[in-house]
Amino acid sequence: MQAAIYRGPGDIAIEDVPKPEVESPTDAVIRVTHTAVCGSDLWFYRGDNEPEPGSRVGHEPMGIVEAVGDDVTSVAPGDRVLAPFAISCGECEFCRKGLYTSCVEDESWSGDNGGAQGEYVKCPFADGTLVRVPDRYADDEDTLESLLPLTDVMGTGHHAAVSAGVSEGDTAVVIGDGAVGLCGVLAAQRLGAERIIAVGHHDDRLELAKEFGATETVTERGEDATERIEELTYGGANHVMECVGAASAMNTAIAAARPGGTVGYVGVPYGVDEEGLDVFSMFSDNIALRGGVAPVRDYAEELLSDVVQGTLDPSPIFTKTVDLDGVPEGYRAMDEREAIKVLVKP
Amino acid sequence: MQAAIYRGPGDIAIEDVPKPEVESPTDAVIRVTHTAVCGSDLWFYRGDNEPEPGSRVGHEPMGIVEAVGDDVTSVAPGDRVLAPFAISCGECEFCRKGLYTSCVEDESWSGDNGGAQGEYVKCPFADGTLVRVPDRYADDEDTLESLLPLTDVMGTGHHAAVSAGVSEGDTAVVIGDGAVGLCGVLAAQRLGAERIIAVGHHDDRLELAKEFGATETVTERGEDATERIEELTYGGANHVMECVGAASAMNTAIAAARPGGTVGYVGVPYGVDEEGLDVFSMFSDNIALRGGVAPVRDYAEELLSDVVQGTLDPSPIFTKTVDLDGVPEGYRAMDEREAIKVLVKP
Repeated sequence: MQAAIYRGPGDIAIEDVPKPEVESPTDAVIRVTHTAVCGSDLWFYRGDNEPEPGSRVGHEPMGIVEAVGDDVTSVAPGDRVLAPFAISCGECEFCRKGLYTSCVEDESWSGDNGGAQGEYVKCPFADGTLVRVPDRYADDEDTLESLLPLTDVMGTGHHAAVSAGVSEGDTAVVIGDGAVGLCGVLAAQRLGAERIIAVGHHDDRLELAKEFGATETVTERGEDATERIEELTYGGANHVMECVGAASAMNTAIAAARPGGTVGYVGVPYGVDEEGLDVFSMFSDNIALRGGVAPVRDYAEELLSDVVQGTLDPSPIFTKTVDLDGVPEGYRAMDEREAIKVLVKP
Repeated sequence: MQAAIYRGPGDIAIEDVPKPEVESPTDAVIRVTHTAVCGSDLWFYRGDNEPEPGSRVGHEPMGIVEAVGDDVTSVAPGDRVLAPFAISCGECEFCRKGLYTSCVEDESWSGDNGGAQGEYVKCPFADGTLVRVPDRYADDEDTLESLLPLTDVMGTGHHAAVSAGVSEGDTAVVIGDGAVGLCGVLAAQRLGAERIIAVGHHDDRLELAKEFGATETVTERGEDATERIEELTYGGANHVMECVGAASAMNTAIAAARPGGTVGYVGVPYGVDEEGLDVFSMFSDNIALRGGVAPVRDYAEELLSDVVQGTLDPSPIFTKTVDLDGVPEGYRAMDEREAIKVLVKP
C-alpha cells in the first residue's frame, strides 16, 4: 500500500509501506477514503518540530472498516467510520468524562498504526475511537465531506467556543481565520451567539467567516486589532476564542477580553516561551484561560447529528482536493496559504 | 494625625500627616481602629516594586465612621465599618456583576484617600465600598478581629477556592501556607471540600492549616512536592488553589492539577516574565486557569454572616499585634516570617 511519509522539513513523499493488520482484539483496520492535511501538519513541514524522518503522517481518517479484532463490537467490516485525531480507549477515567485527549493509553496515529494520509490505517481501541456514520449517509459524498472536519478542526473550533463559555445571545470574538477559526465561527453561531467578530488577515477567509455567521470582521493587527475589538464591543468581549496557536494571538485574545471574561484557546501556544503570556492583565482583569487540545471524540455525536440534519456544514473550508499522490502538493498549497484546508481522497 | 509612610525599601516611618476630610458628597472619613500589614505590602518593603517615597500605606481598614458626605446613605457617623483593599463605586457594570476590582472609578487607598495604616482614612464611594458591621457586634473585639481579614486575605482565599471550582465533596490542593493560603483552606472547608491538602514549608503554619480543616499537608519542594501531591491524589487534583503569587508556585499548581482540572490563582504572579508559565502542560491536559485580584467586596456579606454566626474565624492568622508606632516592627516581623500576619490597632 501507499502512504505519505515525512522525509524532512518541506519534504513529504508517497512511498510503499506494509499494509497494517489486525493485531490486537480491539483493533480495526480502515481503508481510508477521505482525509485531510491539517494546519498542525505544517509545524513539522515548516521544521517547527521534527518527527523522525520516515514517520507516517496524517491524523484525520475517514473510511470503510476492512477488518476488526474479536473484541470490537461497535463497528463491523463495511461500515463507514471517522476517527478523531486522538485515539481513545473509551474506558478510562478521562474518556468516561469526555476528556478523550487525556486517555491513559496514550496511542496516536503513528508508528504501527500508520498515518491517516495513506491507503489504510490501523485503529487501536476501535470501540473507544471510531464514530460510525449512519448507513443512510454512508455513501453520500456531500455528507461525508461535511463530516470529515469532525475528525479535528470542527471539534476543535467547537472546543474553543465551549471553553470560552459561548452561549445564547453572547458576543464572541474569534481570533484567527484558518480552518479552526472558521469552524469556531460556525460553532459560536451554532451555540447561539448573537454577535460574532472574526479577526484575521485574509479577505477570502473572512468572507467565508461571514457565510459561517460572523457579523463583523476585524483585519487590523496587534494593538490596532485590540483597539478595534474594544471599540466594537464597548470595552472587550466576555468570550474570546483563540484559534491560532501562537503567543501573539493569545495576547491579542487576552487584550480583547472584557474584565471577568474568558479566553478559550485550542491551538498549541507556540512562542509563549519566548514572547511570554500577559498574565498580569489576566490577573488584574480576572480573565480566565480555558481550553487546550480538543477532545473532539466527545463532540462527535452532537456535531454529526447536526451535519446529517443539514444545520451544520463546515465543508467549505476544503478549498482544494487531491488524491494520495497529490498530498505533497496539498502541503505546499496550505503552507503558501493558497488553500484553507486540503481534502485528500486516497 | 499620624500615619505610616513608605520611605524606601525596608523603611516604614510613622509621621504627622494632614487629617483627611470629606471633600465629595460620596466620601466618608473613618477613624481606623483595626488594620493589618499585608503580604503584598512586603513587595515594596522588599523593593520588588517602588512606590513614590512619602506614599501612605496600608489597604485593610476597619474603624468608626467619623463623617460622611451628603450623598452617603448606607453608613452614618458612629457606625463600625470595614473596607476591602479595593475601592468600588458600586454602580458601574463591573461592580454590579460583583467584579468590584474592575470598578471603572479606579480609586485606591493612597494619595488623598490616605493609607489604612494611619489614624484616619477617607473612603471615596462610601456606599459602594464600606461594609457595615451589625450593631450587635460593633464593639465585640473578638468578632472584629475575626472580621478584619474580610478586608483582604479571607476574601482572597475564598476567591481562590471559588475560582478553582471547589465544592461539596471535592479534593482541593492549596499551594502556600501564608495568610492567604490559610484562609484558602478555611474557604475550601467552608465550601464543603472533603480532602484539603495544604502545601507549604512552615510547620507552625501547616499546624494552623490543619486546625483550619486541612486533612493532609505536603512540605516537599518543587518536583518532590508535585510527586507527593500526585501520590496523594492518585494523579493530580481537580481543584488547585495557588495562594502564593510566584511563577514557581503557579507551575507547581499546574503540575499538581489533574487533566481537566482548574487552577484558581489569586496572587500577583511575580516572576512569570522570567520563569515562564507551563502553558504546554495546561494545553495538553486541558487545565483551566481562573482567578486574579480578588473582588472581596462581593464576598463580604456572606463571609460576615458566617463570622458573626461563629462558623468562620480566620483571626488565628494574626500572630502579632502592634499599635501604630509598632507598624515598622510589624513589617519587619512579617518580612522575617516571625509573624503570619500582623494586626494593627492605631
